[in-house]
Amino acid sequence: MPITITDITVQDIRFPTSAGLHGSDAIHKDPDYSCPYVTLTTDQEGLAGHGISFTLGRGNEVCVAMIDAMKHLVLGRTVESIFADMHGFWHMLANDGQLRWLGPEKGVQHLGVAALINAIWDLKAKQAGKPLWQLLADMDPSALVECVEFSHVTDALTEEDARALLTEHAGTKQDRADNLRTIGLPSYTSSAGWLGYTDAQVRDLVRKYRAAGWTWFKMKLGVDLDAEVQRARLIREEIGAEGRLMVDANQVWSVEQAINSMEALAPYDILWIEEPTHPDDILGHARIAKAVAPIGVAVGESISNRVLHKQFMQAGAMAFCQIDSCRLGGVNEILTVLLMAAKFDIPVCPHAGGVGLCEYVQHLAAFNHVAISPSLDNVAIEYSDHLHEHFVNPVVMRNGRYQLPTVPGYSITMKDTSLEAYTFPTGSAWSQ
Amino acid sequence: MPITITDITVQDIRFPTSAGLHGSDAIHKDPDYSCPYVTLTTDQEGLAGHGISFTLGRGNEVCVAMIDAMKHLVLGRTVESIFADMHGFWHMLANDGQLRWLGPEKGVQHLGVAALINAIWDLKAKQAGKPLWQLLADMDPSALVECVEFSHVTDALTEEDARALLTEHAGTKQDRADNLRTIGLPSYTSSAGWLGYTDAQVRDLVRKYRAAGWTWFKMKLGVDLDAEVQRARLIREEIGAEGRLMVDANQVWSVEQAINSMEALAPYDILWIEEPTHPDDILGHARIAKAVAPIGVAVGESISNRVLHKQFMQAGAMAFCQIDSCRLGGVNEILTVLLMAAKFDIPVCPHAGGVGLCEYVQHLAAFNHVAISPSLDNVAIEYSDHLHEHFVNPVVMRNGRYQLPTVPGYSITMKDTSLEAYTFPTGSAWSQ
Repeated sequence: MPITITDITVQDIRFPTSAGLHGSDAIHKDPDYSCPYVTLTTDQEGLAGHGISFTLGRGNEVCVAMIDAMKHLVLGRTVESIFADMHGFWHMLANDGQLRWLGPEKGVQHLGVAALINAIWDLKAKQAGKPLWQLLADMDPSALVECVEFSHVTDALTEEDARALLTEHAGTKQDRADNLRTIGLPSYTSSAGWLGYTDAQVRDLVRKYRAAGWTWFKMKLGVDLDAEVQRARLIREEIGAEGRLMVDANQVWSVEQAINSMEALAPYDILWIEEPTHPDDILGHARIAKAVAPIGVAVGESISNRVLHKQFMQAGAMAFCQIDSCRLGGVNEILTVLLMAAKFDIPVCPHAGGVGLCEYVQHLAAFNHVAISPSLDNVAIEYSDHLHEHFVNPVVMRNGRYQLPTVPGYSITMKDTSLEAYTFPTGSAWSQ
Repeated sequence: MPITITDITVQDIRFPTSAGLHGSDAIHKDPDYSCPYVTLTTDQEGLAGHGISFTLGRGNEVCVAMIDAMKHLVLGRTVESIFADMHGFWHMLANDGQLRWLGPEKGVQHLGVAALINAIWDLKAKQAGKPLWQLLADMDPSALVECVEFSHVTDALTEEDARALLTEHAGTKQDRADNLRTIGLPSYTSSAGWLGYTDAQVRDLVRKYRAAGWTWFKMKLGVDLDAEVQRARLIREEIGAEGRLMVDANQVWSVEQAINSMEALAPYDILWIEEPTHPDDILGHARIAKAVAPIGVAVGESISNRVLHKQFMQAGAMAFCQIDSCRLGGVNEILTVLLMAAKFDIPVCPHAGGVGLCEYVQHLAAFNHVAISPSLDNVAIEYSDHLHEHFVNPVVMRNGRYQLPTVPGYSITMKDTSLEAYTFPTGSAWSQ
């Protein structure tokens, strides 16, 4: 029996995180982690798909409006008809002749595509009775290639390339999956280094996370270089020579400022500088990458689509690829970027934190390791310990590692009590 | 007395243009030209500012929601306080710590910035009793530089560069303004070459526009190359060797397809190929530009911001700069791009058509000619003859040239009867 999507609802869910300065950085000073929360109701009792994209609070209602404007393209479709031509479905959703002008393939329009596509993959994985990473890893290369969006990237990745990359390590997928079941996926924490924290808070948090197993730490900068150099020294002291330290400027610098600032930070053995300048500035990042080597440039959380990712890779402007599960147009376009990263031999360290992003990217990183890129050298997934309590099946961390998800779906289903409390502006968390 | 913005309203205005296939191209097959229409009410009787951004119909309500989400940043401000730090105001509006995530500086978020910023400049020009082009042209270089957004482009354009460019031809501004008053600004028409038209329609329209004074013609392509080569031949026959012919692929091609297709069209003496591939693909456009020379690459209507424009110029990927009055973040960011174009010696041929875009860009092109770039070689402003009847002060064309606007403001105020009839979905044009 085909499964039909009979209703689509979108809720405006917001968490008042700005109160504690969690998530504060040089350019996002007071985020309220938020998401439009999509529910795809089906005609099969108990089977629904959920999906989100991620925002920082104000404007979340704009994403809700965007998804409402796309609903008619999904409503009434069967899961079977969508997956019979999954790439065609994605392309149709991202390229509606009128809605496309609002992007194209970027900003609010693409956040809308992401939430709907992610919900459809959640539904498919639940229907298959598998966690998303496994659904993807169990698909054969040809079936996966059918889901990939190749338009405007064939100068970097062809269908043949994709098939070859997916075939190369297919024989050993099971070994890697078994290994992940035992030890989990490596992560790093950004929870110790937010700008709004005091030195004492940072020191305590670094100690707490080290005790819990973390060895990679990321700190924010971009406001007061002298103070930030001192903070890098403090963290380096705490984590020792064997710990890894990354820094994140959240786009505030010009190209020249980035190059000059990293000179001052280099003595503290920095693995990567994240978002040193405007996320659209491929050529600027390429100049920075050349100037700050061997420190690597990490980018991705604000790169809108596969076409921009492609150019960062082609230009040598990206040493670490930080895919965003909600900024890109959902699973399909993420497959494109994972394959390009493999072709260009760039490790993928997904952006996470916020709300639901950790839940999402554990699947993407697990699939990438099992089916595309076996090496975990230089791979760690961002981790932040906020807001997991709102999910029915939250991430499970052990010894600083993500434990492999086992529950069917894409791990984004929220608890009813949380949805009620954090609906904006009528939920109890906001109306009080 | 300072003038205070006391109320802000946004209307969802749509024109059912898809019925006639006006505006049909390879990727936007059925546009209903639309705009969110902003009214800034002030405490001075009879003085209001109007502004729009432009969309293709569905999703116009998403832009309305976006502007609603930004209102609080503008409401209650005085015109004087805004213009006391105009660059700071622009930066604040484009970089709100929560809303910024929805872009940054692209898509729906930036369309919202554009509509509000354009409305503020309309208000300022009306207050000054000058058409916008003249308000800008009369400002001295230092005052103009105060309005320019330099963040993330200082590797291509510094404040000193901008001041020098604005000073270089300041002594002869009046001559050029007088000349424009006599002969107007050159334009080209895209109204003869829409994909949905038959050969006979195209031939009739080319003849009609030639008789009315036009010598530059643009045709759409990207669907059926053989048929399009025939159509290029038809138009070339009609316009003779002295006419100029441009082609527009509206982003559908891959880099390879673009290069191959232009080989087939080259015999018809093509001035430019517009949007040969994805508008975010700077490196791809640079490859195409190299391969198709001496045909120039024209881009801009879908380039989101100054950072992307900068790179197109740095990479040699843009021979004609087609600024969009509503895609960029309004007048301030357009100043940045005009100045960069002058520095890189790239002619500016603004994107227009749609609804209100001709009304807007005539001011930008006039200012650019008078105050920044005296040469009109290789300059023509897009013109399309639809929907002008809805404006209180529509463009005036004579002999294929835009006549210099004389009425105070930015020419975007719509007639009340049009606003009523085309409000979506309740206006009479939609409810019938």
